[in-house]
Amino acid sequence: MTEVHVHEDVLKANDTFAEDNRRDFEAAKVSVVNLMSSPGAGKTSLLERVLPTLDVRAGVLEGDVQSSIDADRISSVGVPVSLVNTETTFAGECHLDARMVRSGLGDLSLENLDLLVIENVGNLVCPAEFTVGEHRRAMVFSVTEGEEKPLKYPLMFRSCEVVFINKADLLPHLDFDMDLFRDNLHDVHPDIEYHLMSARTGEGSEAFASWLTATPAR
Amino acid sequence: MTEVHVHEDVLKANDTFAEDNRRDFEAAKVSVVNLMSSPGAGKTSLLERVLPTLDVRAGVLEGDVQSSIDADRISSVGVPVSLVNTETTFAGECHLDARMVRSGLGDLSLENLDLLVIENVGNLVCPAEFTVGEHRRAMVFSVTEGEEKPLKYPLMFRSCEVVFINKADLLPHLDFDMDLFRDNLHDVHPDIEYHLMSARTGEGSEAFASWLTATPAR
Repeated sequence: MTEVHVHEDVLKANDTFAEDNRRDFEAAKVSVVNLMSSPGAGKTSLLERVLPTLDVRAGVLEGDVQSSIDADRISSVGVPVSLVNTETTFAGECHLDARMVRSGLGDLSLENLDLLVIENVGNLVCPAEFTVGEHRRAMVFSVTEGEEKPLKYPLMFRSCEVVFINKADLLPHLDFDMDLFRDNLHDVHPDIEYHLMSARTGEGSEAFASWLTATPAR
Repeated sequence: MTEVHVHEDVLKANDTFAEDNRRDFEAAKVSVVNLMSSPGAGKTSLLERVLPTLDVRAGVLEGDVQSSIDADRISSVGVPVSLVNTETTFAGECHLDARMVRSGLGDLSLENLDLLVIENVGNLVCPAEFTVGEHRRAMVFSVTEGEEKPLKYPLMFRSCEVVFINKADLLPHLDFDMDLFRDNLHDVHPDIEYHLMSARTGEGSEAFASWLTATPAR
């Protein structure tokens, strides 16, 4: 079997688990978002800031290769969290797949949540390939990463409905060309929504909060 | 077969290609380094700045999921480059493996090089798992990524002999705690070498140049 066929089989097996997850999410009436980014783009910082302010019952499924650092941060702001370490159980995988997400759902009471945020492993490649049963996908992108990233990682930018452009507070200290970034973004995903954010100053928090709590189309 | 066994077989097959690459590198007397980082940490910017100043004949094998952006940048400073896009030939892989590197060697005349830099796909997970026949490994880490990264991606930080800590020019505008980062780094790799750098200002370029041109232990 060719490499491509093996890859297709892996994705097909994943879809079955994703359908099971989706069924459970709908039965529990929980809205599920898959949040992806490069390492260090600020997913956890944005969630720490915004989740405690929401008027819905939110929980987080935290995906990391190793360590409970992000899960501890989320837990310390009073949000229920389930940690999936891909290192210990899943051969150090660089992404969450639907089966890993399923393995982490037992630690959360879905029926007590309105919103579940799946914080994926920091990586711009494989997380975009694996649906996990989510209703919606978002990316956090840091302005420190450079304007050309949509062209280098098009699948990731295409698979998300919104990009939260984080670390806006650093713009005065960077050569980042926002117009060029927007052009590149629209080249790969013409009607994508985006918001300028700063987890540090709170800029854009309302946009993130209102996206998180919007009712997904079912 | 379990997932872990499949993974072991993949790595074993990779080792065979890596040995072939290594034999070719030694026959051509070329020193080969594998340069890894998160997306946007600054590998290409550092290479653009430093490679043209070296007094050795350097070439680059550029690994990217898609696009020739980085390869074009390297080429425009007069350095021979071979581009390996993992999207077109290798099912969109999130890393370079030894076979992919082998497929890219044909575009370079190894016998005309003293130094080959393999610029890996931007990713802190899988690139660290796949040896490609290189003599030495280095990481570029950006201070915008946060102090805890060595604890979250220990294999990457352990597999490299040196970390070039880039974007030092942004330190006055960040809450980055350098002592904490160094503690975390030494927790996972006690005797690792590191240098503070800025691809933007040129700070640390000599350390990068002298590491690149050091003769590897054979």
